[in-house]
Amino acid sequence: MKMDLVQQLQHKIDTKTKPLGALGQLEEIALQIGKMFTTLTPEIKMPHMLVFAGDHGIAKEGVSAYPAEVTPQMVLNFVNGGAAINVFSRQNGLALKVIDAGVNFDFDSNLPILHQKEAYGTQSFLKGPAMTPSQMKSCFEKGGAVVQQIFEEGSNCVGFGEMGIGNTATSSVLMSILTGIPIEACVGSGTGVVHEALERKIAILKEAVNSYKGEDTIEARLAYFGGFEIFQMAGGMLKAFENKMLILVDGFISSVAFLVAQHYQPQIKQQAIFCHCSQEKAHKAILNQLEVKAVLDLGLRLGEGTGVALAFPLIKSAVAFLNEMASFEEAGVSEK
Amino acid sequence: MKMDLVQQLQHKIDTKTKPLGALGQLEEIALQIGKMFTTLTPEIKMPHMLVFAGDHGIAKEGVSAYPAEVTPQMVLNFVNGGAAINVFSRQNGLALKVIDAGVNFDFDSNLPILHQKEAYGTQSFLKGPAMTPSQMKSCFEKGGAVVQQIFEEGSNCVGFGEMGIGNTATSSVLMSILTGIPIEACVGSGTGVVHEALERKIAILKEAVNSYKGEDTIEARLAYFGGFEIFQMAGGMLKAFENKMLILVDGFISSVAFLVAQHYQPQIKQQAIFCHCSQEKAHKAILNQLEVKAVLDLGLRLGEGTGVALAFPLIKSAVAFLNEMASFEEAGVSEK
Repeated sequence: MKMDLVQQLQHKIDTKTKPLGALGQLEEIALQIGKMFTTLTPEIKMPHMLVFAGDHGIAKEGVSAYPAEVTPQMVLNFVNGGAAINVFSRQNGLALKVIDAGVNFDFDSNLPILHQKEAYGTQSFLKGPAMTPSQMKSCFEKGGAVVQQIFEEGSNCVGFGEMGIGNTATSSVLMSILTGIPIEACVGSGTGVVHEALERKIAILKEAVNSYKGEDTIEARLAYFGGFEIFQMAGGMLKAFENKMLILVDGFISSVAFLVAQHYQPQIKQQAIFCHCSQEKAHKAILNQLEVKAVLDLGLRLGEGTGVALAFPLIKSAVAFLNEMASFEEAGVSEK
Repeated sequence: MKMDLVQQLQHKIDTKTKPLGALGQLEEIALQIGKMFTTLTPEIKMPHMLVFAGDHGIAKEGVSAYPAEVTPQMVLNFVNGGAAINVFSRQNGLALKVIDAGVNFDFDSNLPILHQKEAYGTQSFLKGPAMTPSQMKSCFEKGGAVVQQIFEEGSNCVGFGEMGIGNTATSSVLMSILTGIPIEACVGSGTGVVHEALERKIAILKEAVNSYKGEDTIEARLAYFGGFEIFQMAGGMLKAFENKMLILVDGFISSVAFLVAQHYQPQIKQQAIFCHCSQEKAHKAILNQLEVKAVLDLGLRLGEGTGVALAFPLIKSAVAFLNEMASFEEAGVSEK
């Protein structure tokens, strides 16, 4: 009886010189990647880390611990190589690209930034729609174009990170829309909102959600409460799915972008690895609803894609053991 | 007021361009390593992975899923570069050394193995003492000598892994002796002992522990039930402590070796990082009693030092962010 690819992959994993299942989650990752790339000898090529930045009108309502000017400041920090995502991407061999998806700042056009600003930040969804449906559509296209470009250059693996003061607030609302979980259970501390300020963040988001009077569809709600960088990420993920690329999801906001992408492409989970479980409270609820176990659980809550960059060596290890370890037969080791 | 080193390290960590505490466990590791190496700019030098192999008389009593001949077969697999620990050490830049601490096999003296065999495996502690107290002492010295050598060559970081059919059985008894936890709660599946075979393993170890008639001291019991590779590891850890080296602990057996070392040097924990939480049931109880959180939790149960090699990039990331990330001031980013 001829084995199909999945059986062959499982057989290859099971006959490596180790007790059955002894590499735990790495074995699941190896199987997933082999299936995705439809080969017994998968290879990760030209891995990229994409960091999408955008500003949020809701930040003006006092939902963040940091002022909105930190978004462009951090983009410049990325450009100068000084942020955590720079350090970890350098260390672990991920090519980093920074995308201005909608920052409220005019960056010098000569800077190594992909300039695809949708607008100077979204509008506050406490007052009206954050963006128009056509802006949302444009974000999907622009995010997709970045991934298409790196795919055409030879990449088969892409991580998604973000920067945007106020984007945990936006993400909490999108999460509630997409998961059906009440908004108050979707809100967390973000960059450091605690005690009364956290109560205020919850109250503001509740008020915004309850006062929504637009069309009663998920798509209309997404546009009303959305974020430019979140939709560009979602568009990038959808394009990565289309190109059979490995999708590396970071923490809370990246996972919300994934939920958006999944709304449009229910099969996308099979190509995604959830790199870490964030300290941001609601992230665990997303992972639970997706029925996935994240690779790392280090109490991170930084975003930028840092969880992806930190988990990336483990993903390479999964591929490496599949390709490089000896089998019982090759090594002349007795089986059970 | 002048800050002491710990305060300076914490200040350096806290002023990096990220929300306070946002790098979670990596921040604790960075602080620990900075304290250990007494510097604000720590550097990991010539990291080594030491894999100690030994045979266990108790394996003859049917406590393992694999035959004892697998110990030398796997040592040869290490020598040929085909085992998981070879793959992960190569990937992550750890120099691998394989030590024959007491394998029941004559290896060719020309092989790249550190030949420091104490004997051809221990005796079965079901019948009498596994080793003599002087053999135990000799193991501490031999393990210490390996670490002293790599320290003198310039290394300041050493990981401890092992191979030895039967060594989870030995480790369960040593764990019980050192933690006071009843033997039945210290036993797990090892390489794959389940159902009746696991019941049998527990019954055999219980019988062995209950029939002990030697001197009523921890040291006498350790020698009676011990393993050569476990004591060489413990000796290596003690020497690493003495030389102010970073000690990377692997899974269940490596952690039991750590408990042995800690019995002789209660301060040793401050220099140790527990790299992963093993699927081997009793490991979590050790980590809980030590009040430490392991870096990875991937459901691994392979030993060899694989958890160390897999976690190593994260330890390097902790050092890297401390040394390379920009501060708020350097990057011109606004604080809260």
